[in-house]
Amino acid sequence: MTVSLADIQAAAARLKGLAVETPLIESPALNTRLGGRVFLKPETMQRAGAFKFRGAYNRLSQLSDAERARGVVAFSSGNHAQGVALAAQILEIPALIVMPTDAPTVKVEATKGFGAEIRFYDRFTEDRVAIADQIAAERGCTVVPSYDDPHIIAGQGTLGLEIVEQARALGVRLDRVLSPVGGGGLIAGTSTAVKGLSPATEVWGAEPAGFDETRRSLESGQRETIDKDARSICDALLTPIPGDLTWPINQRNLSGIAAVTDAEVAEAMRYAFSVLKLVVEPGGCVALTAALTGKVDLKGKAAAIVLSGGNVDPGLFAQVLNGQI
Amino acid sequence: MTVSLADIQAAAARLKGLAVETPLIESPALNTRLGGRVFLKPETMQRAGAFKFRGAYNRLSQLSDAERARGVVAFSSGNHAQGVALAAQILEIPALIVMPTDAPTVKVEATKGFGAEIRFYDRFTEDRVAIADQIAAERGCTVVPSYDDPHIIAGQGTLGLEIVEQARALGVRLDRVLSPVGGGGLIAGTSTAVKGLSPATEVWGAEPAGFDETRRSLESGQRETIDKDARSICDALLTPIPGDLTWPINQRNLSGIAAVTDAEVAEAMRYAFSVLKLVVEPGGCVALTAALTGKVDLKGKAAAIVLSGGNVDPGLFAQVLNGQI
Repeated sequence: MTVSLADIQAAAARLKGLAVETPLIESPALNTRLGGRVFLKPETMQRAGAFKFRGAYNRLSQLSDAERARGVVAFSSGNHAQGVALAAQILEIPALIVMPTDAPTVKVEATKGFGAEIRFYDRFTEDRVAIADQIAAERGCTVVPSYDDPHIIAGQGTLGLEIVEQARALGVRLDRVLSPVGGGGLIAGTSTAVKGLSPATEVWGAEPAGFDETRRSLESGQRETIDKDARSICDALLTPIPGDLTWPINQRNLSGIAAVTDAEVAEAMRYAFSVLKLVVEPGGCVALTAALTGKVDLKGKAAAIVLSGGNVDPGLFAQVLNGQI
Repeated sequence: MTVSLADIQAAAARLKGLAVETPLIESPALNTRLGGRVFLKPETMQRAGAFKFRGAYNRLSQLSDAERARGVVAFSSGNHAQGVALAAQILEIPALIVMPTDAPTVKVEATKGFGAEIRFYDRFTEDRVAIADQIAAERGCTVVPSYDDPHIIAGQGTLGLEIVEQARALGVRLDRVLSPVGGGGLIAGTSTAVKGLSPATEVWGAEPAGFDETRRSLESGQRETIDKDARSICDALLTPIPGDLTWPINQRNLSGIAAVTDAEVAEAMRYAFSVLKLVVEPGGCVALTAALTGKVDLKGKAAAIVLSGGNVDPGLFAQVLNGQI
């Protein structure tokens, strides 16, 4: 099973008027810094503060009436949680979200705010998939995966459609698109859209160091897993292994992936604050980090960088601003 | 002397390809909160982080070769300073900026970064106009006022053109435009553009409490001055009296002005951070504050809110996030 450009275009039609068409922003200061023509796609301004609403709504809106009545369950550190909770609220579907106990407070509060029920679990001792499956079995509700689902991937891919179309409206053919990689749903959908509309455009990913399982998988040619002791401030990108569906798509579409450290991510968040005036969460900032560190080179190139989310606790953001991270 | 729609359109032609056409952003969460259809115009994303580049470049680009060679002098707490310094850098004109000793560090550093010379003064004991005039007399250079100049007002007015045109492209006729008010140059230009293109659209202002001299002037019908002991975190808006040129324009064009407190501004900055994912400086946030507090009512209305700048010290922003302001 895979995802086609037509699937993504169908998702875009479903999302029309519901998802925000986030702007494609150009910063002369960033252009000068990187030596290219670089656009930002701030999904920080998407509903619920991250790209996740796109996939969640595309998935939930295709449930049958019977499935809707029985509700949905999802597991997520927060952005998918909020996306599913908001989509469920709009569609009047009951939602239960399985969240790690160390999820950022803002993400937990926002998920509750969209009316979802929350079940906490310990990320280091419990298995969230097993918990979700058990709840689904008990309640007869539908599990909504955060990335390994064709409708989720197609929904996230609408971001790629917008990038190519918005760049074209400005008369620009993009050489490179850079996106964060967690489970790989966003970049699988985005790369499918980008490659479908503009085959010569390269798609590059960025991952947190220690959680660069897709980068290592691309190198080895097979799905690699993370070290269980790895830690990162990029709470949105802490996935253990490339997805069954996302992996073959990403193996086919991606030109490469860069791994970035927490310190580099914090520096990029400060750059986004002081120069771009954008609030970006750690995981949302890894593609920008890869560009600013030169790990993905944009010199002389026309490129778009996805800022995939902005849901960061104010306390953590203050620490970043104060140089404590 | 006044400013016409044609002056603003001519300024827009000069700025084309140099100023950023900042996006007009819609946030479903903000719409729900305010009960209207509300767009944001984030001039935080303008070059040098505030709208000021528009007016400064429009003014400097019209200097004669002889005037350019002798250079320019300006006084500003920071945003006009940066706008003038950047425009001067682009046009290769020497620039000296007179800045208060308590100007935000980020603004001082950025102004230096654009290659300008800086002369500090004490805002409470020295007269910045006298200092600038003396420097101009000594060097034969041109004083670039921060608001009371027709080319500056026309340049800032290009923001109003963009708002009306971007809203029209979305099929929206705006009922209200809200903008911060300092010396009144931004809102004088913006209101001239808005009234010229869309006469039925109301233009409202927002000022910091204690520095609401234009609000009080509108009420009394004559130019009022501020209390010398007034203090505000809105460093960009600390002007003593409505301008000679800006006052008659604003008296004619504005529907009203709201005054907002520092605490209300800090709350709005936190809202911009957590919901909109935008970094807004205190003075840049007063119009949003007026909307969020209901002091300017947007219920049932189509409206645009100008976020006029985002140059805020990280330390102050961290204090705001931590609820210390």
